[in-house]
Amino acid sequence: MAEGAPTVLLVEDNPNDMELALLALRDGGGVSHVDVVRDGVEALDYLFRQGTYADRPAGHEPRAVLLDIKLPLLNGIDVLQRLKTDDRTRHLPVIMLTSSAQRSDLARCYRLGVNSYIVKPVDMDTFFDTMRHIGHYWLVLNQPESL
Amino acid sequence: MAEGAPTVLLVEDNPNDMELALLALRDGGGVSHVDVVRDGVEALDYLFRQGTYADRPAGHEPRAVLLDIKLPLLNGIDVLQRLKTDDRTRHLPVIMLTSSAQRSDLARCYRLGVNSYIVKPVDMDTFFDTMRHIGHYWLVLNQPESL
Repeated sequence: MAEGAPTVLLVEDNPNDMELALLALRDGGGVSHVDVVRDGVEALDYLFRQGTYADRPAGHEPRAVLLDIKLPLLNGIDVLQRLKTDDRTRHLPVIMLTSSAQRSDLARCYRLGVNSYIVKPVDMDTFFDTMRHIGHYWLVLNQPESL
Repeated sequence: MAEGAPTVLLVEDNPNDMELALLALRDGGGVSHVDVVRDGVEALDYLFRQGTYADRPAGHEPRAVLLDIKLPLLNGIDVLQRLKTDDRTRHLPVIMLTSSAQRSDLARCYRLGVNSYIVKPVDMDTFFDTMRHIGHYWLVLNQPESL
């Protein structure tokens, strides 16, 4: 179904994290494409093809969503809940990327069906290496439902 | 909660795949421990501490379950369904490891809430490398609920 390079959706409002993540994901995911949105509402618009993304072309469905928890407008956990309770997106791997491992967030995300939960390393080199691994895992190794 | 080295549960009845996976998981997961069971009933007994595993000590909960689909006694998809519909195990990352990417299996696993679905590479070197990545991802990078 997907044509061309595999795509990942990165939902991140911190510009520094976003830039470094982009470089690392492209490095780890081989020839891949990263789409970026900056808040929770934009993430849902993108994934459900609504609002400013109503005309997003078919195909090129993301193989995974990398989702920050602290986001403007609608937080990452609310986005996760929407994705995992909708038949159109339930199968889509969602990986939380967060700066803290709060036990209540962890429990809530796993209860909602998150696929993976990653704490962003503070050190820049380790962050890069972690994002590279994430890119390789979800863009190259994991088999998405719709291929 | 977990003491000592992080543990992964490998559910695999093919002795060759099992041996190679053990080496690769230990390599990728750093100082880690791999528990192995060989059929679907044994997997449930291990995870729910019943049958021959009724006395399995507390702590050392696995950080992930690597689950073959074709298993004796109870197949991997039935095991997945049991794990994802029980509050005691719903949070546990389950990664299917299978030799074929049948569309019906893929759809069913994602609908049941599988965390990841990996097709075992046929080539031995690629299989080793894939298992090493899986070990690193789920034993080192992913944050489990109960830490």
